[in-house]
Amino acid sequence: MKAPEMPSPSSAVQDHYPDSYAHCFGCGRLNGHGHRLKSAWEGEDVVARITPGPEQISLPGFVYGGLIASLIDCHGMATAAASAERSAGFAIGDRVMPRFVTASLQVRYLAPTPLGPELELRARVREFTAKKSIVDVTISVGGTATARGEVVAVIMPESMRANA
Amino acid sequence: MKAPEMPSPSSAVQDHYPDSYAHCFGCGRLNGHGHRLKSAWEGEDVVARITPGPEQISLPGFVYGGLIASLIDCHGMATAAASAERSAGFAIGDRVMPRFVTASLQVRYLAPTPLGPELELRARVREFTAKKSIVDVTISVGGTATARGEVVAVIMPESMRANA
Repeated sequence: MKAPEMPSPSSAVQDHYPDSYAHCFGCGRLNGHGHRLKSAWEGEDVVARITPGPEQISLPGFVYGGLIASLIDCHGMATAAASAERSAGFAIGDRVMPRFVTASLQVRYLAPTPLGPELELRARVREFTAKKSIVDVTISVGGTATARGEVVAVIMPESMRANA
Repeated sequence: MKAPEMPSPSSAVQDHYPDSYAHCFGCGRLNGHGHRLKSAWEGEDVVARITPGPEQISLPGFVYGGLIASLIDCHGMATAAASAERSAGFAIGDRVMPRFVTASLQVRYLAPTPLGPELELRARVREFTAKKSIVDVTISVGGTATARGEVVAVIMPESMRANA
């Protein structure tokens, strides 16, 4: 008798957050109402791709700026976690991921982002200390950058720890 | 026979955007899926109040940072519009409101925002030129500020004009 095939382990950061911290509207795998963003390594960048629904509109034909800010936020946290793990010698999936939270978020809207096509988020950690990570994120559509973000990520403070 | 009472005209900025530009996920009165934020003058501030639903979670017990950024964005645009109109001698409801869009957005998360209670957004235009408005926004819960934002608003460019 042939053993059942094991599902391949996910390479997405968000699939390895602890269950207690996997409810985020932007990227929690346990939030059925949210965006469920998935971020994974591609070479030296952490990359995510998502196609916003038609309700995610700002002005007709364009993506809601609040969604853009939200995706930059979540993807920035995932990039901080993936990079901290890589620095410590671990790949995504080796163990439970650390959970970062946002200290600050800056978004520059370079051009209106068309609503309809897939968005690509591509990010790297620019600065990494024991206290914080600064992450640069670019959103592009069909190779054209439409927004750039800078996110300051800090390890989840004790005050936010779940009683789970 | 008594004439039917007229509904009192809305004092919310977003109720006076043109129909073609009233679909925004954050504040469009015509977006049935969105937050439908309403911003109005209270003295020298523009104020909005909203109670996030339980799905708007980040970590257990706290509001999703992406929602906070989204609300700051939309409330900032409404504040820019209301202030431009007041400078021109018009109150909200006197005529169709001008439509601003976001050039940049910065959010500092001062403390985790508790999920459950009502959020208050309070904003003023700090700088106002023909080209842009810079708006300061504070989010607070029960009188305690949990996030501060700075939004740069510009009048909607021709390239975003709807063919409506």
